Order: sequence, then structure tokens, then C-alpha cells
Amino acid sequence: MNQSQNRLLKGFRDLLPVDIRKRDSVLNTIKKVFVSYGFEPVETPALEYASTLLGKYGQDATKLIYKFRDQGDREIGLRYDLTVPLSRLISSSTNLQLPFKRYQIQPVWRADKPQAGRLREFLQCDADIIGVKSVKADIEVIKIAITGLEELGLKDFKIIMNDRQILFETIKDQGFKKEEIFSIIRSLDKLDKIGEKGVEEELIKNGFSKKAKDLLQIIKNNQPSENLNEIFNYFKQVDLENKIEFSPTLARGLDYYTGMIFEMVSKDYSSGSIGSGGRYDNLVKNNRGEYLPAVGFSFGIDRLLEALEKQNVKINSNDQTQVLVTVFDKDYEMQSESIADKLREKNINVEVYLENEKLNKQLKYADKKNIPYVIIIGPDEVKNNTLTIKELSSGRQTSVATDKIDQLLSFLNH
Amino acid sequence: MNQSQNRLLKGFRDLLPVDIRKRDSVLNTIKKVFVSYGFEPVETPALEYASTLLGKYGQDATKLIYKFRDQGDREIGLRYDLTVPLSRLISSSTNLQLPFKRYQIQPVWRADKPQAGRLREFLQCDADIIGVKSVKADIEVIKIAITGLEELGLKDFKIIMNDRQILFETIKDQGFKKEEIFSIIRSLDKLDKIGEKGVEEELIKNGFSKKAKDLLQIIKNNQPSENLNEIFNYFKQVDLENKIEFSPTLARGLDYYTGMIFEMVSKDYSSGSIGSGGRYDNLVKNNRGEYLPAVGFSFGIDRLLEALEKQNVKINSNDQTQVLVTVFDKDYEMQSESIADKLREKNINVEVYLENEKLNKQLKYADKKNIPYVIIIGPDEVKNNTLTIKELSSGRQTSVATDKIDQLLSFLNH
Repeated sequence: MNQSQNRLLKGFRDLLPVDIRKRDSVLNTIKKVFVSYGFEPVETPALEYASTLLGKYGQDATKLIYKFRDQGDREIGLRYDLTVPLSRLISSSTNLQLPFKRYQIQPVWRADKPQAGRLREFLQCDADIIGVKSVKADIEVIKIAITGLEELGLKDFKIIMNDRQILFETIKDQGFKKEEIFSIIRSLDKLDKIGEKGVEEELIKNGFSKKAKDLLQIIKNNQPSENLNEIFNYFKQVDLENKIEFSPTLARGLDYYTGMIFEMVSKDYSSGSIGSGGRYDNLVKNNRGEYLPAVGFSFGIDRLLEALEKQNVKINSNDQTQVLVTVFDKDYEMQSESIADKLREKNINVEVYLENEKLNKQLKYADKKNIPYVIIIGPDEVKNNTLTIKELSSGRQTSVATDKIDQLLSFLNH
Repeated sequence: MNQSQNRLLKGFRDLLPVDIRKRDSVLNTIKKVFVSYGFEPVETPALEYASTLLGKYGQDATKLIYKFRDQGDREIGLRYDLTVPLSRLISSSTNLQLPFKRYQIQPVWRADKPQAGRLREFLQCDADIIGVKSVKADIEVIKIAITGLEELGLKDFKIIMNDRQILFETIKDQGFKKEEIFSIIRSLDKLDKIGEKGVEEELIKNGFSKKAKDLLQIIKNNQPSENLNEIFNYFKQVDLENKIEFSPTLARGLDYYTGMIFEMVSKDYSSGSIGSGGRYDNLVKNNRGEYLPAVGFSFGIDRLLEALEKQNVKINSNDQTQVLVTVFDKDYEMQSESIADKLREKNINVEVYLENEKLNKQLKYADKKNIPYVIIIGPDEVKNNTLTIKELSSGRQTSVATDKIDQLLSFLNH
């Protein structure tokens, strides 16, 4: 057997029950918010024609796309984000009703250096509005982002905002050309990671000479655009102005943004933004080839989970197993099965131990799996038509007649 | 722009809201059943070392694995099923508590000819018990399969069963060698699709001469194994014997099964089984390289959805948008937003129309999107602090004071 057969690929991970329960609880909360605003789910295939993906994200990103030839000799690639596949979906639809408000929760793949909260496969969770020019759509996606974080119980977070158009024009005013501007924006996007000095050095390295230092100062003096002011005004009216902050140097790495851009940052979490978005009016086309206005955002679920943990937010799940029914002897198996089924009907999650092993081993199993209660049906219990239920943490236990399910439930809810 | 940019890859599809709502409703029901039996969720990455996947499924299947070299020149492949990745996960775990009952719901990829209910990317939904030799584990997975289908409301289905070991030995008794036996089993697996004649022809084509015809007759005369009889006995005791049927020619296509095998078939659905499973004691190893007994099964979610439709089972979802708040004029936007927020707090899904368009166009939008109610706030309504709510299907409408949310809710629940 080959050694690698036992190994995970570098930069990937298996998700264990505790991870998934937390994540699903978070996703359910977010989904509920999306749906409450009339957003509808969409999913696209993991594989797309490579040509659909290439040339959409900018130079740096394109290198990170997993691509290959399939059995039919087609050039294909794995989904890099959810926005470009959405765009492909819309341009191939003939009877799509606009505005189209969709959410999409699927993994994406990037052959990137693994980092905190960002492995080579990670879940994106997007909400976008296609077909609305009005700033009301910008406001709605930000409102949803804030509502989502609040519903999750994240206490201390901020939305930092900028306008990509103002940024673009400021740089253009300094005499740079289109491709240079994108390159400068991508450098600026690293400000948080590498600092002002780092950005300046990268700009100089990329051939933007000594103008680089001035440029950063000029950008830092930018004022909010008219569009941003309208957004700020709305959030002032609904008393959420403290959640929003103008940041003239915020850049976002992807080429396709055209207007308002934003990132969600969580206090005490420094591994990057927990979500981000913006307006992108020159990416999505309808099936007649006309551009459709679009605005949306994405939660980074892994980072969001880490940020919630940092702020000690408890994430609850109802999926834990509550009771282990132990099996004492082959002769009493049907009794064990039957009591388990009765509890399941009452929405209690119940595991029946499936091998005939010593009771002690079964109790240890419950303990290791964090199953809080065990039911024991031994010879005395069978004779008296009773069972014993025990809370492992406290040792508290009682004997209950097997037909008194209500008494069992009240013990569990004690 | 390249022509292919607008196109889906062949054999793949986009999932639209109506698909996803139904699917999620089905998945939630199934998950609830899994969890009620103490199963825990696990997820594995889409990408694995190719060597992890190759040589596990048998010759035919291996050709269908999507594989390629990544940016780090590793030979990798896309997940072909959920069983082999689970096996890899277990063999790389050092402190896994046995028995391990896990469920896993993730897409898999196969470069196969697209067919009904089976595209090149499809969702698998597995439940497996690792580490239990006892037939009680076999019984539990079948019980869960039956419970799942019943909870979904599928009225008419059967579990057809066989024992791979008996099948293997029957063929061996006819003088065939191990590799030949696997090949014969794979041909037999096509019985439903190509009929007895077809299987015989394929056996002859594969060099198994005239013995082929006899072989099929001999197999058809097989009796249930002791193991199967124990399973049948259990389901007789719980009055589910009518759900189970012995089928001596049932083969299953994958090499790794070692004992009981089964398929779930739904009446009036002829595009294949809606799920299947069995025991596979020689696939999963622990981290010391010892084989662990294992048994499990998989629902084919797409086929299951089609089968439910065939039997006219209604699948409900709470995710539909219930109300569209129309926007009459820019001046009344805040009123629209505010009423929408109040309804959202009461768990009503509400969309606010985001562009300033004619009322008629907004009503048409609600109609096309199957949003059953609209709220209208025009100049009269604003003056009187009221709103008009209207049910589109009946034309029924009423005027409600904006602070009387209860009256609105009772109109919606009428």
C-alpha cells in the first residue's frame, strides 16, 4: 500500500462532528436572515470551463485556480468563488426574473498558501442582488451583513467601507493607466498585512517609482463619495452608524468591483476580514450580452467561526446524542430497541450500543462521546418492567417503568 | 469573449431555488433520522491523493475518477464516493472512538455518461457504522433506511437484499478465480438494465464461455444466508417484513462489499435504485493497519427526489418569500423598510422592491416569483398611517393601521 493513501492532501482538512455542528448552526442563522429578505438559493457545479474562470479575477488570483483536462479533453477548472459562476448562470438563463436576489453556500478551491481560516478548500456564503442600480440594493446587502452578524451574537464588529470608483479615479488622476491602476489596487489591498512601508516597497518594486509614497497620502485624504454618503445616511437613520466606518485605503483584491466596497472586521480577530463585498456592475451579463448592475457580499465561514470563538459566543446545536441505551444481554435487545424508538418519537437523539460488551465499556463510550445520559436495562429491570436512567456528569439516577415515557422525558429535562 | 464562457459543462447542472428548497427539505428529514440514531456528521475534502482513490472501486469505476496534477505536481483526484474518503479519514485518525457512527452529505464526481437522476456531479448522503461486527449494525442501517423513506412520506418502496459472500462462494464453487468473480459480479449488477440475456451475453463476451447460462440459474436458486435470516427475523418482529425482499441475483457494482448488500427501490420509479448499501469488512483500516468491520448505505438524493415526485409526495419548505412590500415613491421608502423589518421579526420572509418602478411592474414581479402577498404604501396610506395588504391569488385585500402588526399576521394566516 502506498504511503500517501493514509494522508490528507496538504492544505485540506477533514471536518469532525464538533466542527460541522457549529458551522451548520451558524449557516442556519445566516440562511434564515437571507430568506427573511427574500433571497433565494442557487447552486452551481464545482467544475466549469476554464475559460469561464480565467481572466475574471485578476492576475494573482488566476494562478490559484485548479485547472486540468477532463476525460473528454475539455479544459476545466474548479470553482474559485461563487460570483463568476453566478454570472455564468445568469448569462445562460433565458427567462430569469429581475431583480434576482440569490444566496449561495458552497465550497471553493484555491491552490493558495494555507493560512489561518483559509485552507485550499473553504466554504463561501454569498448573497447578491442582480439587476438593481439603486443604492437601496447596496444598503440592503450591508443591512443583511449587519443583521447576520448580530443574529449570530457577534458583539463587536465593524463594516469598513470605501468606493472603488473614487479610488480608481484618484489613482488615474496621478497619470496611471488602467492595468497599472489594477496592479496598484492589488498592492493597496495588502495594506493590513504588510503595512504602509510594505505597500510602498511593493509599488516601487512594480515600477511605480517615487510617486508611490505620495499616492498613498493622496488616497488617505479621500472623502466619502456621494454614494457612500447616502449609505451612511440610511444607517444613521436606523441607529446603526456606529457599525460603519469609512476607510479611504480599503481596496479589495478582485478586479471586478466598480463601486461601493466593504469588509466586515471583528474585534480581537486579526486573521483578516470575516466577510466582504461590493458593487460590480461590469461583470454579469444577461443572455443578450448586456451588463446587469450587481451588488453582493460573502461571509468567510471559517473565519467567522473563529471570530465568534474569540468573542466567546456560544454556538448551540440540537444534534448531539442525548442518550445511550446500553445493552446488557442478547435476550434484552428488543427492550433496548423499543425504548430507544419511543424516545426518538419524542425527538430525543438516542444511540443503542450495538456490540455485546461489558457495561463498563459502554459507559466509558458514552463518556468519551459526551453523551450525557445512559439507560440500563438489566435482568432486574426486565423482570420488573423498569429501566434505570443515569446522568453521567452528576451520577443522579432513577428507576422508571418502561411505559412511563413522560417520566423519562422529565428526567432528561431536569 | 469565448463562446464557452456562457456554457455549463456537459453532464452538470445549476440548481435553482425550487430544486434546492425541495432537496434541503428532504435532507433535513434524513439528517434528523440519522441524528436520532446517534449518527454524527463528518465531511472530507473534495480532493484526495489519486492513490487514495485508485484500486478501491474496481476497474469500471476507476476510469470515471476525475484526476489531474495540481500546482505542486501531486497526482490528485476528485471524490468518487464518500466511503473511501471515510476510510482514509479513519486510518489517519489516532484517537477515534469506536464504534464510530457517521453520516456524510457531500457531492461526488464521476466522468460518467449522464443519465436520469445521475449527472457528473451528484449528492451522496451516507450513514455508516464502523467497528461493529454484530448483525445488529446491519439491522440498524436498514432500519434507518426504512425510517428515512417513511418519514419522507414515500408510500411504496422495498428493500431488496442479498449476501455478497454467498454470491461470491456460489460463483467460486463453479471454478472461477477471484478476479473473474469480481468481473462476473459486475456483469450481474447490470441485470436490471440489460436483462438475463444481456448478462449472459456479457459473460460470454468476457470469456466465461457457456457456463454463463448455468451460473445465472444456479445463483437464482440461492437461499438467504444465516445472516440474512437473522435480519429478516428482526423485521418480522417489528412488523416490517413486507418492506424487505430477498433477491439472490442482487450483486452491487463495487468490489468492496463482503456481506449483506441491499438496494432501495421505489414503485413507479424505474431509473435505478434510490439508495443502496451493505457490509464491507475489508476496506477500512485503523491507524495500526488492522481491518475494521463496517456497514452502511447511501441515499441517491436526486433519484429519491424524482421517486417522491413520481408518487406525488408533497415536499414542503418554509423558505418561500411570503410578502413583497412595494415601493410607491422615494419619500415613503423608510415606511416600507420599517414594516418589512417588523414582519421579519415575526419570522415572515419579506422582500422590499428595490427600484422605483410602476406599481404594476412590481405586482407582476410578485406574481412571477410566486410571492403570495403584496403590501402597498401609497400617499393615502402614509397620510392615514395605514397600509394595504393584498392576496394576489384571490384579490382579497384590506387596510391595516401600520402599528397593528397582529392584524397583518392574521390576514397572512387567513
